[in-house]
Amino acid sequence: MALSNKPLKIPAITVRRLSIYAKHLSHLAQVGTEVVSSGALADMCGCNPAQIRKDLAYFGDFGVRGVGYYVQELLFEVQKILGGDTEWRLGLVGAGNLGCALLKHGRATDSRYNFVAAFDKKTRRVGLEIAGVRVEPLKAINHAVEEKQIDIGVIAVKAVWAQEIADMLVRAGICGILNFSFAQIECPDHVPVENVDFGTKFDKLCYQIKSKKFCGKRV
Amino acid sequence: MALSNKPLKIPAITVRRLSIYAKHLSHLAQVGTEVVSSGALADMCGCNPAQIRKDLAYFGDFGVRGVGYYVQELLFEVQKILGGDTEWRLGLVGAGNLGCALLKHGRATDSRYNFVAAFDKKTRRVGLEIAGVRVEPLKAINHAVEEKQIDIGVIAVKAVWAQEIADMLVRAGICGILNFSFAQIECPDHVPVENVDFGTKFDKLCYQIKSKKFCGKRV
Repeated sequence: MALSNKPLKIPAITVRRLSIYAKHLSHLAQVGTEVVSSGALADMCGCNPAQIRKDLAYFGDFGVRGVGYYVQELLFEVQKILGGDTEWRLGLVGAGNLGCALLKHGRATDSRYNFVAAFDKKTRRVGLEIAGVRVEPLKAINHAVEEKQIDIGVIAVKAVWAQEIADMLVRAGICGILNFSFAQIECPDHVPVENVDFGTKFDKLCYQIKSKKFCGKRV
Repeated sequence: MALSNKPLKIPAITVRRLSIYAKHLSHLAQVGTEVVSSGALADMCGCNPAQIRKDLAYFGDFGVRGVGYYVQELLFEVQKILGGDTEWRLGLVGAGNLGCALLKHGRATDSRYNFVAAFDKKTRRVGLEIAGVRVEPLKAINHAVEEKQIDIGVIAVKAVWAQEIADMLVRAGICGILNFSFAQIECPDHVPVENVDFGTKFDKLCYQIKSKKFCGKRV
């Protein structure tokens, strides 16, 4: 069950599915399930057992034929693969409604979102304490990233400011960026960016409703 | 350039990419670009010209050889495919920090998110007006979906309440659900659900940082 040492070149879609496996395994662990069949896990995750086996095969040999997966063990390994065994330190930029929602969610005891700093350009927000994190001015970003060992910058500002904030974070030495703004931001290759883009989800939903005529009422 | 009448069975990934094309075409239109080469559009969207051609071919014949795409025309067609020419009416459930952020974003003039109602179970929030939308009690959902012709329910409540809210929306006749809660919700087949799950994005980012050792400092 150990991770293999072969060089990893994993498709993004596999990483995405691992994250989904982790979510369901975590739920199973919480309700006390010790073993899950590959079929049952596949059903929960909306895929098939062969897909799970193929995804996991990148990392080693998991599961027991005729038994399935040991929930705690597999969860531990998948979280390790995903970096869930690392304590990631987050810095929020933009303490508006969305930013506050993220900070408050981050404080929840079962959360992996460990916000250690927050920044805002509005003077009236600077000094506020939200979910245990004190809001600092933007100019503090430069020193704070190193001092507070911030790994990930979380951008929750208006689209028009997003690139400027991303540049500040990159200059300050950030490792990666989670972008909640509606802007497409560009960063150098060594700083990965993930966009939480609900516009795309909205489009997909509208397309499904429209194309399948799910709703007789209006479309 | 018209939509073909052949029956549509489009892969989800194509719909996702169409949404990305629309985003960039919209930006091009805003800055006054009239024609874009397929290469330039592909670069912006992080794919290749053949992929764009293949995606668009599901819907008809777009683009002019040696010229590229007429921005306004293609944007119009792609938005039509995605249902962007339909006025979708949204109902928010959960007027906390995240919910308020969504309502306020929805009010922005260039936004496609047309919130016509908001609901919350907390008495102290009922009656508040947020970004022009008055918060109603949960029990109002049942009538409001029909009366206010709400197409899409937007769930922004705590994970523990999400399924119950989804059930209420389905019973009230909702067409589709955009789920911002951290819960996996289940709906009957005729009600499509899209999850805006930033946990998955976070995992993917952590994996990239960790596996590529982007950041020498901590990982």
